[in-house]
Amino acid sequence: MGERITIYDTTLRDGAQREGVSFSVEDKLRLVRRLDRLGVHLIEGGWPGANPKDSEFFAAARDLPLAAARLAAFGSTRRPGVAPEQDANLQALLDAGTPVVTLFGKAWDFHVTAALKTTLEENLAMIRESVAYLVAAGREAVFDAEHFFDGYKRAPEYALACLAAAVEGGARTLVLCDTNGGSLPGEVVAAVTAVRERFPGVVLGIHAHNDSGLAVANSLLAVEAGVRHVQGTINGYGERCGNADLCSLLPLLQVKLGFDCLSSEQLASLTRTAHYVAELANLPPQSNQPFVGRSAFAHKGGVHVSALMRHPETYEHLPPEAVGNERRVLVSDQAGAANVRYKAEEYHLDLDRHSSTTRLLLDTIKNLEYQGYSFEGAEASFELLMKKMLGIYQPFFELIEFRLISEKREHNGEPLAEATVKLRVGEQVKHTVAEGDGPVNALDKALRLALQEAYPRIAEITLTDFKVRVLDGKAGTAAKVRVLIESRDAERAWGTVGVSTNIIEASWRALVDSIEYGLMLETRS
Amino acid sequence: MGERITIYDTTLRDGAQREGVSFSVEDKLRLVRRLDRLGVHLIEGGWPGANPKDSEFFAAARDLPLAAARLAAFGSTRRPGVAPEQDANLQALLDAGTPVVTLFGKAWDFHVTAALKTTLEENLAMIRESVAYLVAAGREAVFDAEHFFDGYKRAPEYALACLAAAVEGGARTLVLCDTNGGSLPGEVVAAVTAVRERFPGVVLGIHAHNDSGLAVANSLLAVEAGVRHVQGTINGYGERCGNADLCSLLPLLQVKLGFDCLSSEQLASLTRTAHYVAELANLPPQSNQPFVGRSAFAHKGGVHVSALMRHPETYEHLPPEAVGNERRVLVSDQAGAANVRYKAEEYHLDLDRHSSTTRLLLDTIKNLEYQGYSFEGAEASFELLMKKMLGIYQPFFELIEFRLISEKREHNGEPLAEATVKLRVGEQVKHTVAEGDGPVNALDKALRLALQEAYPRIAEITLTDFKVRVLDGKAGTAAKVRVLIESRDAERAWGTVGVSTNIIEASWRALVDSIEYGLMLETRS
Repeated sequence: MGERITIYDTTLRDGAQREGVSFSVEDKLRLVRRLDRLGVHLIEGGWPGANPKDSEFFAAARDLPLAAARLAAFGSTRRPGVAPEQDANLQALLDAGTPVVTLFGKAWDFHVTAALKTTLEENLAMIRESVAYLVAAGREAVFDAEHFFDGYKRAPEYALACLAAAVEGGARTLVLCDTNGGSLPGEVVAAVTAVRERFPGVVLGIHAHNDSGLAVANSLLAVEAGVRHVQGTINGYGERCGNADLCSLLPLLQVKLGFDCLSSEQLASLTRTAHYVAELANLPPQSNQPFVGRSAFAHKGGVHVSALMRHPETYEHLPPEAVGNERRVLVSDQAGAANVRYKAEEYHLDLDRHSSTTRLLLDTIKNLEYQGYSFEGAEASFELLMKKMLGIYQPFFELIEFRLISEKREHNGEPLAEATVKLRVGEQVKHTVAEGDGPVNALDKALRLALQEAYPRIAEITLTDFKVRVLDGKAGTAAKVRVLIESRDAERAWGTVGVSTNIIEASWRALVDSIEYGLMLETRS
Repeated sequence: MGERITIYDTTLRDGAQREGVSFSVEDKLRLVRRLDRLGVHLIEGGWPGANPKDSEFFAAARDLPLAAARLAAFGSTRRPGVAPEQDANLQALLDAGTPVVTLFGKAWDFHVTAALKTTLEENLAMIRESVAYLVAAGREAVFDAEHFFDGYKRAPEYALACLAAAVEGGARTLVLCDTNGGSLPGEVVAAVTAVRERFPGVVLGIHAHNDSGLAVANSLLAVEAGVRHVQGTINGYGERCGNADLCSLLPLLQVKLGFDCLSSEQLASLTRTAHYVAELANLPPQSNQPFVGRSAFAHKGGVHVSALMRHPETYEHLPPEAVGNERRVLVSDQAGAANVRYKAEEYHLDLDRHSSTTRLLLDTIKNLEYQGYSFEGAEASFELLMKKMLGIYQPFFELIEFRLISEKREHNGEPLAEATVKLRVGEQVKHTVAEGDGPVNALDKALRLALQEAYPRIAEITLTDFKVRVLDGKAGTAAKVRVLIESRDAERAWGTVGVSTNIIEASWRALVDSIEYGLMLETRS
């Protein structure tokens, strides 16, 4: 194994700056667990001083059992003229209770005078004193030198003085930020080299933005020039054109350059992790994304295929398995069947003795995925599907009909939603009606009313999240819709999915799976 | 002006390899005209030997009046053991009648023996003789050395021998291809440097793929190492993860490195060209694309905006006008009055003399955003809101009521959706009903039915995209939902938004804004 690189993930903070992305506290907690499993070393959770939601997150994150990752809180140096112990932002950083604190400060003289409106000397004191204050409180301090490369280009000595102030304060890592994303590879290498000479004992980091399409290259070249701490986001999410994409950097650093970042098992979960994050961000995965995109190892048939099968390196720069992706020349049924068997094992279902069932299951999944289903994040629907096809599922009820009415009277009137549900539960027919905060909520309530007598456990099942993805925007309001529902009881959480051109129907399917799975859990234990 | 770089566009051939893209002959002719206006120097039209549609294209393209661009046809060297004049592919290349022909040949020994299944000597003869044959017929020959970097890494002397064969045949330009997209910047620079030393008088080119997320960086570094011919595609379209994106390379080479590629007027048409190509490729423009993406110069924070107005270079690495893009100040809860005034100016609304209105508008926005509205990507709703608050909006209709019924009979029955809408349009009351592919589609249809007589223009307005975001997952099915609708007529596109806990109501609001804005556009012109 090569030298170690510290991977610093800022999907939860910088990634959330991407236009249209907004993570709930619950999303963030799920992301932390997933990033920890992926194996990143530091996870930046948010900016507690700027955002009350982030303080709430840190309070909840304290109890998360993490395998190896450590949490970092992000915030700015103290305000000009304010003592550290009087600075609300620094207090919020301490209150976050993370082992690591990442403090950002200005490293471009022009920004100090034009944006911060303070003196160059005061800015240096702000950096030094803020870092020292956090270190004295027992935190490991990472210093993010904002606009470092722009500053270094125009006033190199001042930019270096800012770094020196952070080192004097006790910072363990100096992160050079290309905040505007405009730096060229040669500029990055020259600046990193100079900083390395000036601060020989200090760990250097890189934080690159992609405004010039160079974030991955700049990060890579910075590592080759001596940087050992790399910041980025999953899928390159971030403000404007995004941050350096960890989905490219991890395989490049580890497989191509031989550095030690993750275990190979962890790297092999990269594609799934990328899709999981896209799902929570409610963004479609990008098919042409390097390494983890659906098209990344897609070969157009023809002459290639036989050569490719015998010598994959003729047309592949990296084995797709290394990052958990797959070659798509011929999605071999063998591989597909193996996937299904793998899944079945995960759910303790015995498929080996049913190989024709495996085949049928595979065809069904392919057909459902063609319709727009995705079982990523909807394992409960997948398990129900397998059980139904194996004939080992016991239905809890049977739908006779449902009807949903949503109406609005007058321009500013309150919208109403009313659902009626008719079910067969055992020998009985239950016919219930409920109003709700919207059509899905009304259906949910009516369904619960119909089932509560036969299955009192239903009261323990709560729906915790609800996501809607429009699959084919081009069709306008007639587009297909995928609904993901996340539910939980006291002990565990599960996800279900439904797809239809009718959003009510798609929601209904995900809802029914969610309740069925929840009821099944009780039966199981 | 700096040294000249030849820009070689292969959107029509390599770009069309992107999964899901297929250009008709008419599309290709339109693209050629557009690329010529953009100012690229060479346009690769297709592979006439491999594709009859491409031969048809070249026949039609001969009559296109081009300002400065020259067309190139693409094809392979002769087959092993066949004389050039007997080779159908070379004949098709001549028949294409282009001034430039780009011939690709193998430059990796392993590919010659494993894929071509011929001898290393015969491959050299194939290159030399094929190039010579085309040059003798009066064509300018560009040689694409396929898999050059992989070949150079494993058998450098043979890779260089392939280039020498092309030069002996009379090739004017040697293009080094990273066909699998796996080469690292250092490898590219080392190979280019070596080739330059070996072939001092020859023009060198680069053709990079993006499988490692490095296509733009590798092309840029190759230019810095002496390459003067750059191949790429608009929007980076191409097989797998795509080709080097000319939309990044053009501004980088021209604005940042000072090379002579296009005129500044041409560069200022880059954003429009990128969107035009996306339109013909039937792919949504990528909002986070460097330089030309909708989010590339989008700013959030209120504090930024005032500094930005005075010193754009504090937060922008390049003036957006240089590439025909625009600065976007996102109206968000961090927005200050400066943002609102900036927005008002954009819409030619006079707010300066209504500073109490600015205040009120700001409070309204903050309140709406607190409720979950987001005007990012919904500028039409924002404009309607401003007009309504300024008292200068003329309503087209008034809602009396709507009702939506969605029902399903039997477990596997088809879901139905029916909407009734009652409106006051002028003096008349319209009461309409429609079924749809889902509740929103049904409402859309009923609304259009009610308005078509009074406003026939409604037929020109189409809904092109529909997005749903659940705002607060925690509340489960009672969560708030934000619906974004994108609409267009023949000339322009606009976005609208609606928020409610009831998804039907949220969709209704976005829908109504979309139609009202579309009708207003006609009134305005």
